[in-house]
Amino acid sequence: MPGYVMQKVDLLKRLARIEGQVRGLSRMIEDERYCIDILDQISAVNRALEKVAVGLMSDHLGHCVTNAAQGGAQATEKIDEATAAIARLLRS
Amino acid sequence: MPGYVMQKVDLLKRLARIEGQVRGLSRMIEDERYCIDILDQISAVNRALEKVAVGLMSDHLGHCVTNAAQGGAQATEKIDEATAAIARLLRS
Amino acid sequence: MPGYVMQKVDLLKRLARIEGQVRGLSRMIEDERYCIDILDQISAVNRALEKVAVGLMSDHLGHCVTNAAQGGAQATEKIDEATAAIARLLRS
Amino acid sequence: MPGYVMQKVDLLKRLARIEGQVRGLSRMIEDERYCIDILDQISAVNRALEKVAVGLMSDHLGHCVTNAAQGGAQATEKIDEATAAIARLLRS
Repeated sequence: MPGYVMQKVDLLKRLARIEGQVRGLSRMIEDERYCIDILDQISAVNRALEKVAVGLMSDHLGHCVTNAAQGGAQATEKIDEATAAIARLLRS
Repeated sequence: MPGYVMQKVDLLKRLARIEGQVRGLSRMIEDERYCIDILDQISAVNRALEKVAVGLMSDHLGHCVTNAAQGGAQATEKIDEATAAIARLLRS
Repeated sequence: MPGYVMQKVDLLKRLARIEGQVRGLSRMIEDERYCIDILDQISAVNRALEKVAVGLMSDHLGHCVTNAAQGGAQATEKIDEATAAIARLLRS
Repeated sequence: MPGYVMQKVDLLKRLARIEGQVRGLSRMIEDERYCIDILDQISAVNRALEKVAVGLMSDHLGHCVTNAAQGGAQATEKIDEATAAIARLLRS
């Protein structure tokens, strides 16, 4: 069971809002809105998505640590995997 | 008329795909999929959004230059505005 | 002559400061300072470097536009090149 | 004792290289090199710095997990702190 289960409702709410923002971007393009305004809206969506990512990461790491504290194995692999995901989020 | 008008169809197609990807993220959360897989999907959506941003920026800058070549005024302000939008995309 | 020539002194001052910040990072590692403090210092250096990048981009774009206004050729290629550099800064 | 102590030599080598890259940026400005080439060099430095950040983060998280496995307290606070640092690296 993933660590984020407890905050599922919150995550789904955020994603529904992001979906609406993306739909809003389509509408801005349809309406031929000013380019710079659309770019700023894209920045906002990226930021909102990264907040979701940070929330998930936080739960995941907390889960790893709890698991390790309870004598769970594979803690090192989990951390390597999480670090690799952070690197991909950073695109480095 | 914004510079991106000519590629409206392409931009709308990309955004429809991104909207589907965000819906996919919700489904992954609903299904309690593995955290790291969701994080990678978020990285993919961010990348797709930034491709849209770069496409819009390219059109916008091309438009500024064409306009300046035709003796249009306000070229400097337009460039300042575009630079500020680039800074916001970079979050710097 | 590149567009940034006029602000050379400012750019060199910023880069000298960034070089000092990187040297500071080495000192933090030598002194075995707390990991999170080092990470925050890295965030600060990245931000400072991106400010330099945005300044250079601004000059470059301004130069392209001035050039186009004076009937210079190659405006489109210059814009494509600048857009590609923006994409690389964004890592998208 | 921070978790990165074991790889201190590697981190210091990387930072020395980054310091050299930043000095190279100053030289490029002095020599009035082409703007786009300088921007690409800045992208490279940012990427190198983020690799250092990811390395430090990896050690830090590994340390947290080991600590938790040994019954160390404060695991949750440590994870919150690490998550906040990731958010700052992402600028979200």
